[in-house]
Amino acid sequence: MSTISPASPTASATSSSPRTLPSYLQGEWRQPTEGSATGIAALDASTGEPVALVSSDGLDLAAAVDHARTVGQGALGRLTFHQRALILKALAQHLNSDEVKADLYEVSARTGATRRDSLVDVDGGIGVLFSYASKGRRELPNAFALVDGAPENLARDGSFGGQHLYVRIPGVSFQVNAFNFPVWGMLEKFAPAFLAGVPSIVKPATPTAFLTEAAVRAIVDSGLLPEGSLQLVCGSVHGFLDLLDVRDVVGFTGSASTASAFSGHANVLSGGVGLTCETDSLNAAILGPDAVAGTPEFDAFIASVVTEMTAKAGQKCTSIRRVIVPADALDAVVAAIGTRLDARVTSGDPRADGVTMGPLASREQKAEVRRSVEALLAGGGRIAYGSLEEPRVTRADGTVGPAPSGAFFSPVLLRFDDADADAVHEVEAFGPVASVLGYRDLADAVRLANRGGGSLVATVASADPSVVATLVSGIAPFHGRVLVLDRDDARSSTGHGSPVPHLVHGGPGRAGGGEELGGIRAVKHYMRRTALQGSPAVLTALTGQWRAGAGVQAAPSSAAAYPSTAPTAPSASVGEVDPADPVGEHPFRKPLSRLRLGDAIASEAREITLDDIGHFAEFTGDTFYAHTDEEAAAANPFFPGRVAHGYLLISWAAGLFVDPAPGPVLANYGLENLRFLTPVSPGDSIRVTLTAKEITPRENEDYGEVRWDAVLHNQRDDVVATYDVLTLVAKE
Amino acid sequence: MSTISPASPTASATSSSPRTLPSYLQGEWRQPTEGSATGIAALDASTGEPVALVSSDGLDLAAAVDHARTVGQGALGRLTFHQRALILKALAQHLNSDEVKADLYEVSARTGATRRDSLVDVDGGIGVLFSYASKGRRELPNAFALVDGAPENLARDGSFGGQHLYVRIPGVSFQVNAFNFPVWGMLEKFAPAFLAGVPSIVKPATPTAFLTEAAVRAIVDSGLLPEGSLQLVCGSVHGFLDLLDVRDVVGFTGSASTASAFSGHANVLSGGVGLTCETDSLNAAILGPDAVAGTPEFDAFIASVVTEMTAKAGQKCTSIRRVIVPADALDAVVAAIGTRLDARVTSGDPRADGVTMGPLASREQKAEVRRSVEALLAGGGRIAYGSLEEPRVTRADGTVGPAPSGAFFSPVLLRFDDADADAVHEVEAFGPVASVLGYRDLADAVRLANRGGGSLVATVASADPSVVATLVSGIAPFHGRVLVLDRDDARSSTGHGSPVPHLVHGGPGRAGGGEELGGIRAVKHYMRRTALQGSPAVLTALTGQWRAGAGVQAAPSSAAAYPSTAPTAPSASVGEVDPADPVGEHPFRKPLSRLRLGDAIASEAREITLDDIGHFAEFTGDTFYAHTDEEAAAANPFFPGRVAHGYLLISWAAGLFVDPAPGPVLANYGLENLRFLTPVSPGDSIRVTLTAKEITPRENEDYGEVRWDAVLHNQRDDVVATYDVLTLVAKE
Repeated sequence: MSTISPASPTASATSSSPRTLPSYLQGEWRQPTEGSATGIAALDASTGEPVALVSSDGLDLAAAVDHARTVGQGALGRLTFHQRALILKALAQHLNSDEVKADLYEVSARTGATRRDSLVDVDGGIGVLFSYASKGRRELPNAFALVDGAPENLARDGSFGGQHLYVRIPGVSFQVNAFNFPVWGMLEKFAPAFLAGVPSIVKPATPTAFLTEAAVRAIVDSGLLPEGSLQLVCGSVHGFLDLLDVRDVVGFTGSASTASAFSGHANVLSGGVGLTCETDSLNAAILGPDAVAGTPEFDAFIASVVTEMTAKAGQKCTSIRRVIVPADALDAVVAAIGTRLDARVTSGDPRADGVTMGPLASREQKAEVRRSVEALLAGGGRIAYGSLEEPRVTRADGTVGPAPSGAFFSPVLLRFDDADADAVHEVEAFGPVASVLGYRDLADAVRLANRGGGSLVATVASADPSVVATLVSGIAPFHGRVLVLDRDDARSSTGHGSPVPHLVHGGPGRAGGGEELGGIRAVKHYMRRTALQGSPAVLTALTGQWRAGAGVQAAPSSAAAYPSTAPTAPSASVGEVDPADPVGEHPFRKPLSRLRLGDAIASEAREITLDDIGHFAEFTGDTFYAHTDEEAAAANPFFPGRVAHGYLLISWAAGLFVDPAPGPVLANYGLENLRFLTPVSPGDSIRVTLTAKEITPRENEDYGEVRWDAVLHNQRDDVVATYDVLTLVAKE
Repeated sequence: MSTISPASPTASATSSSPRTLPSYLQGEWRQPTEGSATGIAALDASTGEPVALVSSDGLDLAAAVDHARTVGQGALGRLTFHQRALILKALAQHLNSDEVKADLYEVSARTGATRRDSLVDVDGGIGVLFSYASKGRRELPNAFALVDGAPENLARDGSFGGQHLYVRIPGVSFQVNAFNFPVWGMLEKFAPAFLAGVPSIVKPATPTAFLTEAAVRAIVDSGLLPEGSLQLVCGSVHGFLDLLDVRDVVGFTGSASTASAFSGHANVLSGGVGLTCETDSLNAAILGPDAVAGTPEFDAFIASVVTEMTAKAGQKCTSIRRVIVPADALDAVVAAIGTRLDARVTSGDPRADGVTMGPLASREQKAEVRRSVEALLAGGGRIAYGSLEEPRVTRADGTVGPAPSGAFFSPVLLRFDDADADAVHEVEAFGPVASVLGYRDLADAVRLANRGGGSLVATVASADPSVVATLVSGIAPFHGRVLVLDRDDARSSTGHGSPVPHLVHGGPGRAGGGEELGGIRAVKHYMRRTALQGSPAVLTALTGQWRAGAGVQAAPSSAAAYPSTAPTAPSASVGEVDPADPVGEHPFRKPLSRLRLGDAIASEAREITLDDIGHFAEFTGDTFYAHTDEEAAAANPFFPGRVAHGYLLISWAAGLFVDPAPGPVLANYGLENLRFLTPVSPGDSIRVTLTAKEITPRENEDYGEVRWDAVLHNQRDDVVATYDVLTLVAKE
């Protein structure tokens, strides 16, 4: 193993004499064993020219895993969620520059990708980074761990409780990716792992590893990532599962047979290695009986089928494989798909003008797709469009004829007379291939869709709500995603085949049973949920969220959110605060630098009179009878008679807790979880206790968010209302 | 296979001539093949007398699975979450009756359980039912599916979006349980599955199957459960995984080796059967360096270790196996545990007075525990308390001596000089056995605890917050639950060994990697998360939650929450509502029977003057400078000058949307998700749009909850504030 200096990826990738692809391990670009000529050649998908030799001979995978667990974990553990999110944003901006993208697009074309395909792969991958950068700051705390769910009280006197907390796994995220999306496939797993604080080791599929390498090079060159947070190993990773244990997770995208081998490894079966698989999927598109030819739904359905057959030459795990239509619409659907394929599809080298569909990624893939189509034909399918013959395609120089690479495949539409033929529900032809089958009624359509045995996604095209309800409720438990296509969203839909970062990507059964993306849900895949039990003071310190009974925390706010290392200052002064005699200084006078969880103000009581209620009704216009009509109010099952407006109570509470002069508290930007628990009658008085509950400094601002716990009591100490007050508070 | 009529379980179970245990399948009690004498005998753990013969010969498991998938799914699918929760409550009340419990306690004693053990098993199981009955109504909608997370907008014009939804799996929950908690072990899996709407098939462990059978008989006799929602199969279920597929889930509690066999089954590896395992666990208890002898934490620690060694004779997956203490405290800890064992533990037949620890469940278990202790001794352990000799115990008649059953085992405390001996971190002696080992410093303690390779639970005993932070942050990712024991919660703690329904039970790695309980989290284990995509109208109809742009839904409110069958009425009238011209009738005049999602009121605009703001400040006492001091307000980074109070805005909004006369809207019980987005200056005016967003009828009341979407705009159509208003509305 030797260390090499960085070289321009584009120059190498587009050169005609193949270079050996380096790996990025332990912070350095490394070549496989010198003199090793055993690398597998990755070829240009259109021309068949060798692009790179791929080998991992002599690379030290164990050292890489150790590097991730030590250096990578260490560096990421010093960053909060928000700090990591900001790095993702900067990285996305770096990759989104015209220069970097032009390089990646050029390399991408060598994988057979058209510009539209590269848009999905490259820009789609960058979009995932932007999305996690944004969600990380909006939906996660600026902390090291993530509180899950509500606090649970487990003792009558409140002295013992529980709280679930997500903490990052202490190991590595090992990615084993498919060949079809060399950039997106890496980044969609990397972004949530990074946000969770978990380093990644990326193993790309060999045929397109040179594009992943180019992307990693652009990332490394940015200098933005903490040491050890991303490593790349090109070539075989045979035996990698032997190196992993309960600390680690594996994310796999690829074939069901490989997934089975991984799932059956002892370290997965009983060693605690987490494994998420995204495998085969015979995705369905169902045409509703209302969506007859001539309706917008029919047109949108046909367009979607053609797009999914031809985008990425059908090499998408989300492509539509089974086109399930009313039996009496079979002919019309087959004809319409054929017409659109004729009109829209030009196969060829993506670098030639006018080409809309590229080759398959390799000759091996072509042979595999051909075998699959033959299996479908043997299983009862008939070719309704296209053929298995070597297609004539547009070559890079604009001429038309057979291509030298031998990786091109004609779009093929199959038709099954027997919709229950096993092959159509079991054989995934991973290319520009789909099959049309007819259903008798909605129940039959549901049954056929579900014969896929679990799929990533299905489309339902219908404008009839009862059809939509029947189909969606029938297929939902078998599908990770269901898209309802109709005239309202046909233009704005993100499309059947496009996973979006906001929504879960994955499916049950044959689809692998894994989940990826889905916003912050995927971040949790790289964390472990632990149920903490203890006293309120302990749970407050461990979670960074104040609980009733916890008193004031001694640690400063920035350390109050589950530090990854022990706090340096002993916190022995944690104790009970008496809400009737809080710390002398009003907490609204404390900037974030001095504010502590548990800092509180307990107000005086204020009596509410009938006149006050009448006045408030008049001033606000809220003359609801419960406030204005004694007799009608008393007849209401919840009120003893006229009662104060809820809005009056919280407005007065603000009057009781606010410190009016300018100070660190800048604004009240919201309120949450308000519940009115006891009606307040004329003559009652209320008092409020306000306690600092959660403190979230913003990284790039000189203020942060403070959530205050508000409790209103009446003169009998009944709880009148509880809520959270949300404020912005200056750091100094 | 023959059908038999119900018989009194207690009479049979306590008879000295063993009966053959029936199974409850397809709605009937069934005996194994007549004439089959091959059943395994389950014995009284104390006396060794046969209690029952256990066999599944000739029982039709495939028919049971089919019964669950058809009849069980059908019956449960007609019930909402709240309806199922109310059945759980009634069932809990039935089982909690003195008569039923007395029967179960009597049978339970034959498994070797003391009254305290039975309390955990029987009352603990009933407690799980009560907990899910309560959480099901408080934390789930009164609907068929569960919306997950926030709506995602995926189109610039809002015409396409996404929403995650949990729908129940369409198959069966197959339970394979351990012998140690025959009642709780069934009910803790049954309750969340039932609440999700998924039927259960229960396979109890043979040695104590007679107690599970008694509990199922009490459940069946109650007549409360819908047909097909619970089946019981006593005896072998060899090959059951061959019957299951992507529709089903398996919950297993037992040995890691069996779990591995299950995990390696093709239907799990690639067929999509969900599998949750709870297996071995070498749970640790760590004594902090501050918790020296004489501190409350030391005493609580010793008490906890002794409780966990002896409760259920140590046959708990959550028992403390590794007692990790400061090296210099080893002697003191060993002595204190010994003293307390001497003082507190009397082994014997649980039916004898004064007995505090029963036998192991069977002779086989005793042999297994003995083998494990021998392995620990061979691996470097020394016996510090107890012995492997046949113990003298209190027999049922009060005499003391060796017991005829041969299943008794003396409490054994081991001591390891080498804390890194492999055996202590790998061998689980599933009986009254624990090992003490010493640590050098906190990092060493963390390392030792994590050598368990993933555990269900650990206790940390310390009153020093920095010790707690270091230990908890170090061990959290390796543990499903961490209990912090100190002087504040020592009395009120629910205990190291007790899973509570509110918190997740399970752990990574060696512990099986599964999660159970945890409140509604476990309900989701029996559901699948699907990402729905579509137009606002479609997503509103499918989720039962109104989205902006959806218009008014045609379907009645009770069907608006993802019906499990298609709605009978076509909903073709779903369309856009013009907020400026809503449906003529004020929605506050509509009872639940007529209210539809999307029913809205759009108010007139109302101008806010400087006088209004001044008056509100005076009336409420909220004289915050942003409302009262032009110069100071203008200096604030968020305000252009004096602005209206947020509380003024929402109070006035109520004045704009409220319909004052008595009607179906009974009360405003709260408010959620309030955000102030645009400041309102004197001279601005505001208007409000209020739209019915979610409708939740209560099962046992003549009213329900309605959540309204509130949006405030100013005269420039900027959004000023958004929030949800929570009301109670009469059904008629």
